[in-house]
Amino acid sequence: MAEINRAWVLEKRPVGDDFDSALKFRDLPMPELADGQVLIRTLYLSLDPANRGWMAGPTYMPAVPLGVPMWGGIVGRVVQSKSPKYSQGDIVGGFGSWSDYCALPADGLNKIPDMGGLPLAASQALFGGAGGTAYVGTLDIGQVKAGQTFVVSGAAGSVGSLAGQIAKIHGAKVIGIAGSADKCAWLTGDLGFDHAINYQAENVRERLAEICPGGVDVYFENVGGKVGNAVVANMAKGGRVALCGLVSQYNAEGAVPGLDMLPVLLKGCTVQGFILLDYLHRLGEASQKLGQWLGEGKIKFHADVTDGLKTR
Amino acid sequence: MAEINRAWVLEKRPVGDDFDSALKFRDLPMPELADGQVLIRTLYLSLDPANRGWMAGPTYMPAVPLGVPMWGGIVGRVVQSKSPKYSQGDIVGGFGSWSDYCALPADGLNKIPDMGGLPLAASQALFGGAGGTAYVGTLDIGQVKAGQTFVVSGAAGSVGSLAGQIAKIHGAKVIGIAGSADKCAWLTGDLGFDHAINYQAENVRERLAEICPGGVDVYFENVGGKVGNAVVANMAKGGRVALCGLVSQYNAEGAVPGLDMLPVLLKGCTVQGFILLDYLHRLGEASQKLGQWLGEGKIKFHADVTDGLKTR
Repeated sequence: MAEINRAWVLEKRPVGDDFDSALKFRDLPMPELADGQVLIRTLYLSLDPANRGWMAGPTYMPAVPLGVPMWGGIVGRVVQSKSPKYSQGDIVGGFGSWSDYCALPADGLNKIPDMGGLPLAASQALFGGAGGTAYVGTLDIGQVKAGQTFVVSGAAGSVGSLAGQIAKIHGAKVIGIAGSADKCAWLTGDLGFDHAINYQAENVRERLAEICPGGVDVYFENVGGKVGNAVVANMAKGGRVALCGLVSQYNAEGAVPGLDMLPVLLKGCTVQGFILLDYLHRLGEASQKLGQWLGEGKIKFHADVTDGLKTR
Repeated sequence: MAEINRAWVLEKRPVGDDFDSALKFRDLPMPELADGQVLIRTLYLSLDPANRGWMAGPTYMPAVPLGVPMWGGIVGRVVQSKSPKYSQGDIVGGFGSWSDYCALPADGLNKIPDMGGLPLAASQALFGGAGGTAYVGTLDIGQVKAGQTFVVSGAAGSVGSLAGQIAKIHGAKVIGIAGSADKCAWLTGDLGFDHAINYQAENVRERLAEICPGGVDVYFENVGGKVGNAVVANMAKGGRVALCGLVSQYNAEGAVPGLDMLPVLLKGCTVQGFILLDYLHRLGEASQKLGQWLGEGKIKFHADVTDGLKTR
């Protein structure tokens, strides 16, 4: 094949939100295929806040090296196979790169089943990392129970919007925190959240004290910073914080204020960080339940799809 | 009785470390004794970092009201009883006030057994709140196991010094963080800690990275602030933080930087706050074990005894 493989190459560690300097769109040669690998035509890339961390340095995995295409979750079609596990035409998901094509070991991929008419991009928004993260964070880490008060920040995001709906299905009173009136209206109007707080316009700490006089039992933390501290100040005795993300600090250039531990101490709360990679054994159950709830009309989701590898 | 009851009265909420303005030494009338109460001649007051929080505002209990003697843990002798539970001469412990005498409900007290020749003040340093807090924090919250790396801050304090020794008894590698070379020498020379770090003179984050290349499995947190963040930056995958105290911020007048959550997130760690009041059911076992270890020569402790209710 003489085709060109277009790719977003990580050329510098990002500073603040200057991704134009960090990532360059390059024409690369087609990847060579080794035994046990498959050549994949990328169909969708999953763009997640965690990408920023992988670019910046080592996290729970090594940093993406400079000079290679950026890593991330992908869905693609097998165009050539040197593995008995996959054949040409199979639709697979896994950890690939931001490029037209990538050569990946077959062992790290999973076949995407037909989702009963659900478009492929949409199915990934629900059954990919976002759905699994929301499921594990709400149930395994947050351990939400019927009658409890559940707060989620980044509530209009892919993970937060599912987390709130999963908590609602389990009988919790659900409050979402998001950054615009439109997002808040979507949470309460379309997704069935009990309340939504616009942190750009409202005092989160005071509003939560009004809405949750008995305190917050479970906080699904996606953002950190001021919003995180406003919620933690309202925790109930013995409350749990499922620490999923800290998007307020991923692009920060200086030191970011940490989480105030005094309420955690005085209320005997537990803050537990988690990474989906440690809970891959839960993804089967998560997909099964999310599919069931989708079919029952109990959850809705929004897939934000951008067309084309090069959009600017 | 026409005796005068001298007392430290809380007259103002403390600002910073200005306790001279907050507490005034006053002559009060003797307390009246109601049915079910006992009159106690105070023998020892337990002076703990938590006292500062109780003066300042509501915590896990209401703030100490202004205009009354300061509250705290005490040991005393029953001089008059209107309860069948206690007789004149009994030595009791409980929650009393910083005064020569106090009238307390018999139900809230416990009788102090003879400690086999151990002086009363010393027995309280080991079997009072400090011993129980160290026991619960190390075993119930920290869940330390043989072969793990255990770090304790405020390591030369009443709680920290016992926590490190309890972790050592359970087979952990123990590192203490304290504020002087003398304290560090006591930890490693007398108490058997594996290492001690003087945070006034050493870079805690870098020293821990050298001493614990595999990371910190359990961190017994007594101080917060910079020291807390230096330890959390070194946590091992799945590590646990037993959040017992935050002495670095009790006297602070402004906002104090919180705990950096990024290592907690990326390493999947758990931070759990606890208050001894929620673990009173564990005190029996704690006292039994601490007494056994003391008899076996496995733990040492230091009781810092000041003589007299009015010392300045």
